[in-house]
Amino acid sequence: MNKKIHIFVTNDDGISAKGLAALTEMVRPFGALTVVAPKEPQSGMSGAMTIGTPLRLYEHSREEGLERYVCTGTPVDCVKIGLSQFFSEQKPDLLVSGINHGANTSAAVFYSGTLGATGEGILYGVPSIGFSLSTPHNPDANFDSCIVYGRKILEQYLIHPPSPDVFINVNFPDIPNDQIKGIRFARQGKGAWIKEFEKRRDPHGYDYYWLTGEFRNDEPEALDADHNLVNLGYVSIVPHQFDTTCYPEVERLGNVWKFL
Amino acid sequence: MNKKIHIFVTNDDGISAKGLAALTEMVRPFGALTVVAPKEPQSGMSGAMTIGTPLRLYEHSREEGLERYVCTGTPVDCVKIGLSQFFSEQKPDLLVSGINHGANTSAAVFYSGTLGATGEGILYGVPSIGFSLSTPHNPDANFDSCIVYGRKILEQYLIHPPSPDVFINVNFPDIPNDQIKGIRFARQGKGAWIKEFEKRRDPHGYDYYWLTGEFRNDEPEALDADHNLVNLGYVSIVPHQFDTTCYPEVERLGNVWKFL
Repeated sequence: MNKKIHIFVTNDDGISAKGLAALTEMVRPFGALTVVAPKEPQSGMSGAMTIGTPLRLYEHSREEGLERYVCTGTPVDCVKIGLSQFFSEQKPDLLVSGINHGANTSAAVFYSGTLGATGEGILYGVPSIGFSLSTPHNPDANFDSCIVYGRKILEQYLIHPPSPDVFINVNFPDIPNDQIKGIRFARQGKGAWIKEFEKRRDPHGYDYYWLTGEFRNDEPEALDADHNLVNLGYVSIVPHQFDTTCYPEVERLGNVWKFL
Repeated sequence: MNKKIHIFVTNDDGISAKGLAALTEMVRPFGALTVVAPKEPQSGMSGAMTIGTPLRLYEHSREEGLERYVCTGTPVDCVKIGLSQFFSEQKPDLLVSGINHGANTSAAVFYSGTLGATGEGILYGVPSIGFSLSTPHNPDANFDSCIVYGRKILEQYLIHPPSPDVFINVNFPDIPNDQIKGIRFARQGKGAWIKEFEKRRDPHGYDYYWLTGEFRNDEPEALDADHNLVNLGYVSIVPHQFDTTCYPEVERLGNVWKFL
């Protein structure tokens, strides 16, 4: 790299996650790092922020080119408080989030705390990338191939940056480096979860419900959908826009809805 | 109305919010209602779902054409558990969320629990609309004009339904019925919050941080942006897409990022 940049690092699995250590290793050759990660796991927190209770922010560790902090809130809170406390003069050059223990493809994008952080980054004008490994939430997952392929993607990102209103969503297959078939651009695939709740009865006779479920793939044949590409052994890259206005429907409905 | 429909009602301010009662009144002439609302206020919860703790679901009240339930989770949890427990055979015809005590325009769309519920509705194939009143979170806000204007919008919605992958975001200005200037289609406006944290010291000498902030309008002159239209006295309607893939960037970056 020609020029060292300042990189904001966060995740949703929390400060102790192996995926965060892997992400730190992946991006460290590119610049100086400020890590602000959640104290507790925050999977499924989407773009949630904490309004009703105050946050704490602690220094975790500090060495040359790598400062680590812990925040008691969500991934979005980590980005908000990190940018406000450490980058009030000059924004970071890049925000990276992950590496998530679990895929963030298809409908998972909607719930993802990893990608909530990248949406927050884009809103505040910081180029942002989320990384996720398609592993069944294994805390001891192997991130070696993510580091290799993530660096290839970062190099291209820095040479040809995306539009500033777009965050990048990268998903890695959980296979060894030499079995990865390549890197493919994709779109967000279609699918949803079914059988989502397991109903149980507590010792006092009252019902409670665990969120669970299995993924229903609504387009198993689509070769441009992120979830299918990852399942086939490709690294998928999807650019997502922060502005979710559906412009064609603004136009169409604007012409047919009549208000007297 | 020709045909009574089955409507799922939820919100993010919780079962006791005045805005939920107003929404119930707004949509009651259109069909039979099943309300599943959060037990506690869930503002700013976006598309968050509850993974690590189980949920409770209680019956709140029941009368002809109107069943009310309370769920201990987020707005997305309310939609998930409500659809799974009460609509496993036949989906509701419509989902409505709100009326939020506070605007959900511009960047607020990203954080909104009201709109998290509508995103979840669309994911599960239920046509979904979010309603919000641009009031500074006043618990005793006046929703009278929302009821009048919301019904006009619902009538058009049912005659000319939006695309099934789009949820509708309606924001009302907080002014009397006869001062509303009209209903306008819009796009998601540009802006963000600044001065977001108030740092305090606790009695034990440790710092903590309250999320606060003021909105920075990045395009105060734009007359097609939802936040400006509402400030000018219009009801704004924005269609939002669930699939947030930025297709032009898939194409453009796909051509310039080179992987060896």
